[in-house]
Amino acid sequence: MSSSGEIEALIELMAKLPGLGPRSARRAALALVKKREKLLLPLSNAMAVVAQSVRSCEACGNVSTAELCDICLDAGRDIRVLCVVAEVQDLWALERARAFKGRYHVLGGLLSALDGVTPETLRLPKLATRIVEDGVEEVILALPATIDGQTTSHVVADILQPLGVRLSMLAQGVPIGGELDYLDEGTLAAALSARRAL
Amino acid sequence: MSSSGEIEALIELMAKLPGLGPRSARRAALALVKKREKLLLPLSNAMAVVAQSVRSCEACGNVSTAELCDICLDAGRDIRVLCVVAEVQDLWALERARAFKGRYHVLGGLLSALDGVTPETLRLPKLATRIVEDGVEEVILALPATIDGQTTSHVVADILQPLGVRLSMLAQGVPIGGELDYLDEGTLAAALSARRAL
Repeated sequence: MSSSGEIEALIELMAKLPGLGPRSARRAALALVKKREKLLLPLSNAMAVVAQSVRSCEACGNVSTAELCDICLDAGRDIRVLCVVAEVQDLWALERARAFKGRYHVLGGLLSALDGVTPETLRLPKLATRIVEDGVEEVILALPATIDGQTTSHVVADILQPLGVRLSMLAQGVPIGGELDYLDEGTLAAALSARRAL
Repeated sequence: MSSSGEIEALIELMAKLPGLGPRSARRAALALVKKREKLLLPLSNAMAVVAQSVRSCEACGNVSTAELCDICLDAGRDIRVLCVVAEVQDLWALERARAFKGRYHVLGGLLSALDGVTPETLRLPKLATRIVEDGVEEVILALPATIDGQTTSHVVADILQPLGVRLSMLAQGVPIGGELDYLDEGTLAAALSARRAL
């Protein structure tokens, strides 16, 4: 090999990151080696810190370093509106749009018969508990406009119907087949404000 | 913010890697958090190991964990042919082409009046020393086909002329303005075998 085993091990791990292939992982690893003090050591430490401190928020499922995340602890946010998302990156995307001032609930995925994801494997029981305990009045389903996303929306709506909450979903500004995480903030903000009742 | 300070710090550092922008750094950081045991901890450790062990090969300038790199220590390689490259990634690219069985010399950059890179800041004195001490008979200049690369080729050729070594450069199979690191192995192999005398 043209480089040492230690660097090859690093390249192999870097290539597992989304957005990096084998060749760009090689380039990134070399950039790390060249910037040992300014990038390699700080990044290694930042990862160790995150590995040690990060957990899931007990309430919403967001990434957090405490039992409850900053959003759930924020007294300025409207406890009566709950926005249901599939993944943490969707929560982050909506936060970037700065158009929602309620709280979130991360399902941790979408229902998928193919992948064996059932209502039991998602954080659905916790969602019902929160709605009742917190006195939530409106639930916004902010799930992706994919087949799995729409299936999940219908199932979640069916489960929540008996609880008497107002249900809404994001407006159809979201492109069909699109991922929330890749949308621009303007589209996300528009889809939030034009949400329609289910 | 939608996430904790620790994660924001990680995202900020990830975004400094070549090939990752702010948004893909966010996605990569989230992937790390999700794969704590399988990716985040191993990657943090791999980086710490590399940071601790990696240095430059005393002879050629390749990345190495010992005083001399594996290529310089390999007795099976032809000591009489030396391939001069600008950066370590160019050495790696040529190694991937599996078409060269001599040794390398990494300059550590290209001459550039604009960036203040002079012959003194490159590893040129060491190159002359190696040629004399190792009895090198041919020097292949494998520098990029850019203005700076060709300028550097000419200057290096001028410096080496008095040493009486045979000088050659990569064939013009290398696209003008192209970077060695991004070329396919076939083109690199062809350019090596069709190298022409200076």
